[in-house]
Amino acid sequence: MKHINHWIFKLTLVLTLAIPAQLLGQDPLPSWNDGNVKSAIIQFVQDISADGEPLFVPQAERIAVFDNDGTLWAEKPIYVQLQFAIDRVKELASLHPEWKQKQPFKAVLENDLPTILDGGKRALMELILQTHTGNTTEEFSQIVQNWLIASKHPETGRLYTEMVYQPMLELLDYLRNHGFKTYIVTGGGVEFVRPWAEHVYGIPPEQVIGSSIKTEFRLQGDVPKLIRLPEINFINDKEGKPVAINQYIARRPIAAFGNSDGDLQMLQWTAAGSGARFLCIVHHTDVEREWAYDRLSNVGRLDKALDEAQQKKWTIIDIKQDWKNIFPPSHQDLTRSSQR
Amino acid sequence: MKHINHWIFKLTLVLTLAIPAQLLGQDPLPSWNDGNVKSAIIQFVQDISADGEPLFVPQAERIAVFDNDGTLWAEKPIYVQLQFAIDRVKELASLHPEWKQKQPFKAVLENDLPTILDGGKRALMELILQTHTGNTTEEFSQIVQNWLIASKHPETGRLYTEMVYQPMLELLDYLRNHGFKTYIVTGGGVEFVRPWAEHVYGIPPEQVIGSSIKTEFRLQGDVPKLIRLPEINFINDKEGKPVAINQYIARRPIAAFGNSDGDLQMLQWTAAGSGARFLCIVHHTDVEREWAYDRLSNVGRLDKALDEAQQKKWTIIDIKQDWKNIFPPSHQDLTRSSQR
Repeated sequence: MKHINHWIFKLTLVLTLAIPAQLLGQDPLPSWNDGNVKSAIIQFVQDISADGEPLFVPQAERIAVFDNDGTLWAEKPIYVQLQFAIDRVKELASLHPEWKQKQPFKAVLENDLPTILDGGKRALMELILQTHTGNTTEEFSQIVQNWLIASKHPETGRLYTEMVYQPMLELLDYLRNHGFKTYIVTGGGVEFVRPWAEHVYGIPPEQVIGSSIKTEFRLQGDVPKLIRLPEINFINDKEGKPVAINQYIARRPIAAFGNSDGDLQMLQWTAAGSGARFLCIVHHTDVEREWAYDRLSNVGRLDKALDEAQQKKWTIIDIKQDWKNIFPPSHQDLTRSSQR
Repeated sequence: MKHINHWIFKLTLVLTLAIPAQLLGQDPLPSWNDGNVKSAIIQFVQDISADGEPLFVPQAERIAVFDNDGTLWAEKPIYVQLQFAIDRVKELASLHPEWKQKQPFKAVLENDLPTILDGGKRALMELILQTHTGNTTEEFSQIVQNWLIASKHPETGRLYTEMVYQPMLELLDYLRNHGFKTYIVTGGGVEFVRPWAEHVYGIPPEQVIGSSIKTEFRLQGDVPKLIRLPEINFINDKEGKPVAINQYIARRPIAAFGNSDGDLQMLQWTAAGSGARFLCIVHHTDVEREWAYDRLSNVGRLDKALDEAQQKKWTIIDIKQDWKNIFPPSHQDLTRSSQR
């Protein structure tokens, strides 16, 4: 009897969860303004869901990949993970007196952001390797979670997990309600994103793919640990994204969403499959409600990918035009401090 | 209306699939003899499925990992992938006249298996790097599939995909019917196993974790390709297995099944989590119906892991005693040629 009750409970749950919003007459994408982009999304989902129709895609092949920084959450004024690394440097500085004289740590301790950014990827890597390693995978996950609870965006005062894009949250739900498996494919560190992606985006840790450092299995006494080493394992950016998609997902996505040149190869790889495809660029165009940047930005540069999107008629989300709301409703409009 | 019909169809499907065999009064593990091992499996699954009980595990955390060679399919007389590499060497030999003088290729061309095996891991790697690369990921997948359709086990005359263990197929189904996500964590090449794992084991490609070579994204004209390079990316054996489990699954499994010392760290990692755990070693003990080997075998050596399993009271499957059937029913008993 216990077993039967258990299954009845599960079936009820399935019944409840399985009814998509449209069946109830609700708009599945309420934070999206009506227009070409919203229509294109809905048309694509209807096309690939219609069994027996030419563009139908079986559920197992409904893979959608999303960049994270600038696509699912804000990346200005700097990548959230860079802010985390900066805060970690300050926290660990007393253990590393040499950092006062050594770049890029010196710049961090002097709050000299331009010098940090001028150091380019090499400086960022150095910061990450020195502040994200030397602990176990479980300890690092806890450090990330503690930081996210305590840290606020410097201009909006919001928690970083409230700096996610409400229209994209709705899109993730909409796709999942139509049988999609949604993946994050981020240039950011995979173990920086996994601890909160399920709670914030509904994306479980095994569906988060990112850059990584090497880890090593060690027995401490009788207890096995995975130790995070100061050594790069994989950079999940540009040409790395299709490589990782093949390595982790092993199927070619049918939909891909990005916002920068770092996402171009992921979009190309997705586009090159046969059958229905949805290729999409988030274009940051709203200087009032968010940020406006593309070809000249040092964070999230969108240049070649914008040309290719225009030329190949991929879908371009114009945030100012296409998004009714940008952030989740708790603090609907950004109020920024004056230093911006 | 179309949408509604679609959902009713899906719900019916869910209802049909969701009823586990026990509810219908069937034995979910008919190829297992009654005894301690079978009882322990069923007890574990009941314990973690009983909502509200102390050992209950939420569905998202029901992760079970399986080694492949020797755990899910036969690995004697040599790993199937080594046989594949040997056949590839012979196929490609006319393009590589230098192989006639160069080990381990010379040994392969002379059918000198002892010399190949004496070369150890280094020789195996060399064979794999030279015969598994230089093509695209899609081409390689096709090569594997073509080979599996055309090749037979040298002693049984069966297709290799019929050399899988029927009791383990039943176990995979049984676990999945109780909400488990089943993963393969193999020392073999991930792109050697993925093309057929879903069809044979019901394990989709994204749930196959294995050793890998590096791939590179290249645009050929306008068409993106992933090219397989003759360079090791990751060896998914011993200490590598927990590293890869963390990297791909990002949750600690609650059940792990292996058969050799290469699986020991995966079992240790799984065991070290809190809550209910199932740790299991497949011990090859049936010289009549399969093979009998453990501490002294050059393929699938089971020595340290057997000691630790005995010491920590992990479950040890004694094939001779615990398995009623070994291979799928199409050819129930092995008939071997006399050279064995």
